[in-house]
Amino acid sequence: MDIPNLTSPAQFIGKQSKDTISFGSGQPDLPPPEEAFRGISMRRDMRYGMIQGEEALREKLSREYSGSTAQNFVITNGASEALDLLFRVLPRGNLLLGKPYYYSYVPIIKAGGLNPVCTELEEGRINMEDFESKVRECKAVLINSPSNPTGRVENIKTLKEIEKITHDLGVYVISDEVYKDLIYERENYIIKGEHVITVNSFSKTYCLCGLRVGYLWSPDKSIVDNCIEMKTHTSMNTCLLAQDVALNTMDTPKSYVANQLKIWKERRDFIYKELLGLGLDLWKPEGAFYVLPKINKPREFVWRLYKQYNTISYLGEWFGAPDRVRFSYALSVNQIEEGIGRIKKCLDGMNGK
Amino acid sequence: MDIPNLTSPAQFIGKQSKDTISFGSGQPDLPPPEEAFRGISMRRDMRYGMIQGEEALREKLSREYSGSTAQNFVITNGASEALDLLFRVLPRGNLLLGKPYYYSYVPIIKAGGLNPVCTELEEGRINMEDFESKVRECKAVLINSPSNPTGRVENIKTLKEIEKITHDLGVYVISDEVYKDLIYERENYIIKGEHVITVNSFSKTYCLCGLRVGYLWSPDKSIVDNCIEMKTHTSMNTCLLAQDVALNTMDTPKSYVANQLKIWKERRDFIYKELLGLGLDLWKPEGAFYVLPKINKPREFVWRLYKQYNTISYLGEWFGAPDRVRFSYALSVNQIEEGIGRIKKCLDGMNGK
Repeated sequence: MDIPNLTSPAQFIGKQSKDTISFGSGQPDLPPPEEAFRGISMRRDMRYGMIQGEEALREKLSREYSGSTAQNFVITNGASEALDLLFRVLPRGNLLLGKPYYYSYVPIIKAGGLNPVCTELEEGRINMEDFESKVRECKAVLINSPSNPTGRVENIKTLKEIEKITHDLGVYVISDEVYKDLIYERENYIIKGEHVITVNSFSKTYCLCGLRVGYLWSPDKSIVDNCIEMKTHTSMNTCLLAQDVALNTMDTPKSYVANQLKIWKERRDFIYKELLGLGLDLWKPEGAFYVLPKINKPREFVWRLYKQYNTISYLGEWFGAPDRVRFSYALSVNQIEEGIGRIKKCLDGMNGK
Repeated sequence: MDIPNLTSPAQFIGKQSKDTISFGSGQPDLPPPEEAFRGISMRRDMRYGMIQGEEALREKLSREYSGSTAQNFVITNGASEALDLLFRVLPRGNLLLGKPYYYSYVPIIKAGGLNPVCTELEEGRINMEDFESKVRECKAVLINSPSNPTGRVENIKTLKEIEKITHDLGVYVISDEVYKDLIYERENYIIKGEHVITVNSFSKTYCLCGLRVGYLWSPDKSIVDNCIEMKTHTSMNTCLLAQDVALNTMDTPKSYVANQLKIWKERRDFIYKELLGLGLDLWKPEGAFYVLPKINKPREFVWRLYKQYNTISYLGEWFGAPDRVRFSYALSVNQIEEGIGRIKKCLDGMNGK
């Protein structure tokens, strides 16, 4: 079988048929809350908005971050733009991140002119010994908990140790928390510190990926100001209609998020049990909606699964995990079940069964 | 009078009262067309869209660029993001642009890792002799006609010469045409060539600045692909709701644009005559909605006009024109008239009259 040079998820995009099972794209399949669209007016003022973001949205967000005001936020085109802006304005030098990592991290860290330095995750979580030895040569660290692609959540003890070390060293901490509302084990813990920057989004919690609204928060005024200055030149305000929708989601009853979490947990339990049943070596997901099992000959597996079984999965090497494959379980339990059957057949076929 | 260090338009943003006359911000004050919002559904699929942009929008745009298909476009967060993506993916080296220039150009050219080289405009237009001597050491050129801040439109003869030289040298041409529908003298001329990239927007033509939808077009497939790849990591798809509105605008009757142009021309005629009447030295605007007269002691003028006469204007030095001041005439004729009165008083005051 000829296996093409699989370099990025782009190879699968737009190539789905009715029978495709996609464990590929990392986005909720569920609908946004009704509240999101209530009372949105298309007739609103469509002149430029504040580059920093609409005051009402920042004001409302500030209630979720104790001791904050609207001034501590910048509303962005999703968490992606928040990260991109940050990497362009942070002090030049090394940036420490865990490996496996979200596949856009390395390209935008480099595009921003920073040098990525990796700490190998252990069982999908930060190994403090390795972290401590490497952080000393870094200007900033990037934490992603819950993690895409490992599905793991850092222990609060680890996060507090990171708070202390980075505070002592004067190192910036960027905490990408876009899956903060999808943690199965505990409440989210917001890292504290004068040089902390939290990156967040409305995409995953409210099933609004295509709307593109995210934000960054920081008590560090110069970081906030520098991001606003950069955004003034690179994209200006985030779409005003989209910000209106984002503001609305904040009135969604807490039960919406609780219900979502119940659905995700059921899917997590199912896929984790089934993949263990196939004899795969994988970490138990504690948040987000990804599993990252070890797979023999992952390129051949991903390509066969796609071509012979019409099922999309993502190569671990795109995430810095060359011996693994990522499965997003943003699918109904029925679809996951069908997909597991195909994965089994594919593995059996590769093992000559 | 104490004049602060006026470093950017940010100094005036959000500081307007009811009586403020703002010749500052460069955006239409008129309403968007009714058609823009007709039938937009909030219940549309809000999962990620194609990074390149919605197929229907690109397809419709392709009809405006002869010999093109939807593949030649990338839909972006306004023209700003289109330019930012381009400067990040173009070959490293010198980029030639006219001076005075739009104030975001130099920061994003530099942020993208390119080196800006300026050709001094003559009477607000490109001087081909200087252009020719400098283009040889450049990898790309940036054209902005109609120009912000000069209000000038390049002659078609000049544009054709640029086509030829850049073709012969294999130099990329970025043509920022966001004011293409606001030309008082002639139809827009689209620069042709295999390495041409046109940047455009729905903001100025349809009074939708806050919506943030623009695009880039190019026959150069590798440029288009590289921009998509960069955008995959830096912001993902442009807001889907905003793209729906942009698609709608393309059904706006031609009379909408013609009516707008009539309004702009009336304002142009008025402000040009009045500023000449004040004895100012300025170029006649041929497109867009800016005038850039020479002003003695421009910093003092801009600050006095703001503090004493509650009228906002922008320092020419932000646009590379330190002896000038930019006035946007996106105001009703009545407001322009009131503003002119204040400008006269300010100038008289400075001249000790």
